[in-house]
Amino acid sequence: MEDVTQLAGRVTELSYALDTFYFLISGALVMWMAAGFTLLESGLIRAKNTAEILTKNIGLYAIASIVYMLCGYTIMYPGEFEGGMFQSLTTFGSGLVGSTDNTAAGVIESGGEVYYSSLSDFFFQIVFCATAMSIVSGAVAERMKLWSFFLFAIVMTGFIYPVQGFWKWGGGFLDAAGFEDFAGSGVVHLCGATAALAGVLLLGARKGKYGPGGQINAFPGCNLPLATLGALILWFGWFGFNGGSELKVSDVGEANAVALVFVNTNMGAAGGLVFALILARLWFGKADVTMALNGALAGLVSITAGPLAPTPFGATLIGAAGGLLVVLSIVTLDRLRIDDPVGAISVHGTAGIWGLLAVPIFNDEATLLAQLLGLVSILLWVFVTSFIVWFVIKATFGIRVSDKQESEGVDLSECGLEAYPEFTTAK
Amino acid sequence: MEDVTQLAGRVTELSYALDTFYFLISGALVMWMAAGFTLLESGLIRAKNTAEILTKNIGLYAIASIVYMLCGYTIMYPGEFEGGMFQSLTTFGSGLVGSTDNTAAGVIESGGEVYYSSLSDFFFQIVFCATAMSIVSGAVAERMKLWSFFLFAIVMTGFIYPVQGFWKWGGGFLDAAGFEDFAGSGVVHLCGATAALAGVLLLGARKGKYGPGGQINAFPGCNLPLATLGALILWFGWFGFNGGSELKVSDVGEANAVALVFVNTNMGAAGGLVFALILARLWFGKADVTMALNGALAGLVSITAGPLAPTPFGATLIGAAGGLLVVLSIVTLDRLRIDDPVGAISVHGTAGIWGLLAVPIFNDEATLLAQLLGLVSILLWVFVTSFIVWFVIKATFGIRVSDKQESEGVDLSECGLEAYPEFTTAK
Amino acid sequence: MEDVTQLAGRVTELSYALDTFYFLISGALVMWMAAGFTLLESGLIRAKNTAEILTKNIGLYAIASIVYMLCGYTIMYPGEFEGGMFQSLTTFGSGLVGSTDNTAAGVIESGGEVYYSSLSDFFFQIVFCATAMSIVSGAVAERMKLWSFFLFAIVMTGFIYPVQGFWKWGGGFLDAAGFEDFAGSGVVHLCGATAALAGVLLLGARKGKYGPGGQINAFPGCNLPLATLGALILWFGWFGFNGGSELKVSDVGEANAVALVFVNTNMGAAGGLVFALILARLWFGKADVTMALNGALAGLVSITAGPLAPTPFGATLIGAAGGLLVVLSIVTLDRLRIDDPVGAISVHGTAGIWGLLAVPIFNDEATLLAQLLGLVSILLWVFVTSFIVWFVIKATFGIRVSDKQESEGVDLSECGLEAYPEFTTAK
Repeated sequence: MEDVTQLAGRVTELSYALDTFYFLISGALVMWMAAGFTLLESGLIRAKNTAEILTKNIGLYAIASIVYMLCGYTIMYPGEFEGGMFQSLTTFGSGLVGSTDNTAAGVIESGGEVYYSSLSDFFFQIVFCATAMSIVSGAVAERMKLWSFFLFAIVMTGFIYPVQGFWKWGGGFLDAAGFEDFAGSGVVHLCGATAALAGVLLLGARKGKYGPGGQINAFPGCNLPLATLGALILWFGWFGFNGGSELKVSDVGEANAVALVFVNTNMGAAGGLVFALILARLWFGKADVTMALNGALAGLVSITAGPLAPTPFGATLIGAAGGLLVVLSIVTLDRLRIDDPVGAISVHGTAGIWGLLAVPIFNDEATLLAQLLGLVSILLWVFVTSFIVWFVIKATFGIRVSDKQESEGVDLSECGLEAYPEFTTAK
Repeated sequence: MEDVTQLAGRVTELSYALDTFYFLISGALVMWMAAGFTLLESGLIRAKNTAEILTKNIGLYAIASIVYMLCGYTIMYPGEFEGGMFQSLTTFGSGLVGSTDNTAAGVIESGGEVYYSSLSDFFFQIVFCATAMSIVSGAVAERMKLWSFFLFAIVMTGFIYPVQGFWKWGGGFLDAAGFEDFAGSGVVHLCGATAALAGVLLLGARKGKYGPGGQINAFPGCNLPLATLGALILWFGWFGFNGGSELKVSDVGEANAVALVFVNTNMGAAGGLVFALILARLWFGKADVTMALNGALAGLVSITAGPLAPTPFGATLIGAAGGLLVVLSIVTLDRLRIDDPVGAISVHGTAGIWGLLAVPIFNDEATLLAQLLGLVSILLWVFVTSFIVWFVIKATFGIRVSDKQESEGVDLSECGLEAYPEFTTAK
Repeated sequence: MEDVTQLAGRVTELSYALDTFYFLISGALVMWMAAGFTLLESGLIRAKNTAEILTKNIGLYAIASIVYMLCGYTIMYPGEFEGGMFQSLTTFGSGLVGSTDNTAAGVIESGGEVYYSSLSDFFFQIVFCATAMSIVSGAVAERMKLWSFFLFAIVMTGFIYPVQGFWKWGGGFLDAAGFEDFAGSGVVHLCGATAALAGVLLLGARKGKYGPGGQINAFPGCNLPLATLGALILWFGWFGFNGGSELKVSDVGEANAVALVFVNTNMGAAGGLVFALILARLWFGKADVTMALNGALAGLVSITAGPLAPTPFGATLIGAAGGLLVVLSIVTLDRLRIDDPVGAISVHGTAGIWGLLAVPIFNDEATLLAQLLGLVSILLWVFVTSFIVWFVIKATFGIRVSDKQESEGVDLSECGLEAYPEFTTAK
């Protein structure tokens, strides 16, 4: 018969299994967000540039996976490198034999400290890194060289993102300073938006976007159902993004926390959607569906820094403010002639900043000062390094397609095919 | 060392965590059904009305989330209000501090009665409420004013749906009378379809749909791959809808029950699809893919009232009957000049009724009388209240766009943009 | 108070519940892959044949579900038939009363041998069977009679697939011979590709595909965002396909194994994508996005036979080789005038073979001889039986539409409607 000690070990193992499974499912949902970015961006641009943005999105996800494994993870979590994780990931050999993942005995002895598979964490980190990079692709759409973008993706996922990720999640100075960023309004979203901003500034606006005398021309998105589906995929995937960031589900307190995160994530998106839609209706006279989508996403980004603190009603308000801000930000950037075809800088940057600053409202452990420190550190680091990298690529390989290629559409020049060869009547 | 009592507490907590996680994942899958409705409806209507139906679908989901939180949940589960849940949802303050979610001590003391997070249940209820409302949007497509629809959504999700939901799931008279409705063939699907029917009757058919002398003109759906994807999303999400409605998975009996629900849900859809497709082939001479999709959905709605009772073979037959009925119902409604562009009333209403009445075939605890009582109660309540609300909106703000707006497409009048600006050759 | 034995029973039940839930979620993700195949194929063919391929994909999934329940499962797992499973699935009666699913007492007594619901396994098997059949539909696109395809689907899912499935997973001679095929590079993917190849050979190429003098005409896919979404759905669903094939998650070792499978599945896809894209760029001069998608899928197929053995770096290399091979294979098949509109034979067949042969590189328990035995057995069995079935159907009902129907598009002849009635300018 099993004695109490044996049984306790079995319970500890089962608990570890549940936390690992929860982590893996959350990670899979975040991977699925790659499809959300892909469709959102495809739907909001013009048909002639669609195949290229598809290629960018799937390509960056694959690049992020590989580069983060080879380099980024080690920078972001140096403790794992010392523990042998890097070697067990990258040796050419048997994964099980060389694995440094936890043993049953080690888990039981740790008394609750080790409670999920290291590899499940690694998976979760990979998909977060890819998410940060996904933000960039939309902002530089319709005019950038494909392979220059991929080159940037390598540096971003292998170095720029991991360094500031280490500052907070790897145990660096921002963590020590009390900076609060639950699932990454700053570390993921502001980071991606800042890298995008640097790229957009060096790249310039699409031809014909801004006319003389302050004129702003609309380039309507070619496929709004896809954009809507993309936003709904992101909404759905965000339950993994925020829900998984609690890192543990296996007791009453943690399960309640994960449930609150799910509810608040949903309410943040709902608040953002409704208020962006109302503002668009009042301001522009019409219920602009693209503003509603960006409002929902802004709500999600806003609540991401602290989904565990507010009540669901409070989360709705945080999201609502994010939804209002994103509409203002999109209009403002356009007036500043900063051309972001899909609104990524506003959704992830402006709402990301708001999300970071909103944390202290509901979370007594957070301070405005620490939030500002984190915000400025991420912004400065990512902007400066990204700007340098974009600049070097621009000076060497170039980052912008030729005028002729741009007017024909980058699909032909970069991918050699059209995304909708039978549908579009005009090039 | 841990003693047996401590260990037993840890097992109880772990069990609570698994049930909560199962509930949250199920709820996320139901949220994902919002994307299914959005695409299904977008694909089955004409291009010029697409942006508006996208806005309706995402808007209603957000509205349902907020209104159900502020009002609907309390009506449907008054016990939760007394328990302080309403206050802990809607106070402006810290979610964790004010939370009335269960404590570890309370869970352990309850001896198994309290076994999941209250917030996870709240999340599950929100997405169910949104599902009921999603059914309405398709039926009133292509001719309704957007903001009048949103006004109806507020009343529906804040009042009409919760009242009849209380009757069954909140412990009201239908529950006491032995009415069986596992995951809501009646409470969700028939409810939504009935509200849609009331709206369609007051709204009237689309211009040109019915000619003189009984002529019925087809308005083909503009994007069948999206419609198919929508149906497959619904099929996938239904594993959460039905699977989560068992409410518990954490012992052998419950795990087996959830597995049976998954299998029967799948078989109901398969049966509905195959038989609708065969009937369409025999009747119309062609394998009409839209009938196959509606057949699958009708199969899903049919099995929803009692997926736990039949064998998988029995579930296939229930679904098959649903698939046959939906084809008949769609043709019949068209002959009656009740214009439902996407077949929502047939899929959710006709198949919902069949689902309710089929429960006693396999479930000995159900009686035809109780099922009829539930059916009639829901139908009457929802029809009368919806009719009044639609009527008042019609008399005040109006519910129908002008003839000119309808012929140009509601996208331009309501949303100020086109969903496919580069694809459609004619308006 | 609970004693240790009672508590141990509760832990065993909870463990069973977690494994069952993990199995069901994995199965639902595999079901979702049906949407992936549907969109991938819809996006890669021409608009005029889209409604038919939608019908084929949803129809085959439903047919697979029903036929596998009635017949295939019993052939593949004869032990289950003897255990009464078949009867409890197909009797007309109450599913719970007649169920042969495990009892709590039986689970506890089994000492860990019985650890998940039989019905959850049945669900997982159904969706695997449907996956194998999904592979066929793309290869025979744009020219096959719909109902002849469905006839083949019945034989494939009810007989051809289950027989070779029994050889490996039901305890047949391939299992005894040491053939290693973790989640089915052979049993599922090579099987589907081989049945497709037999069909394509008897069906012939699409009209106009191959000109005189070795000329190969491109028929560009009509909707690349849908194809990309389809590939991403498959990538996402593959976490269930491979992740669920570990069959157990509930202790430290198993949880680690599932985590490694998740990571390696992701890395295989990433490796395949990057290397296929680079090869396409070098060879064709452009970053052909369809090659990138097929590269990712080939990477997934390649790692499926043994995702548990290599390190993540090793998995990346296996996927990379798959990605290179699929580009070569697609070009080679085209030169051989074997017309596979979506590349299914290359993705699932060529990469499936590579996946089987790659297992011994990292897994010491596998031998090249046993892998070859499995490969040849599956190939021969499926090719010969499929060829006979396709041949008989061709000789009786016919398998190919008329030239006129093919040039008008099979949507009109088979489904009586168009998939995109408002978008395409020319037939």
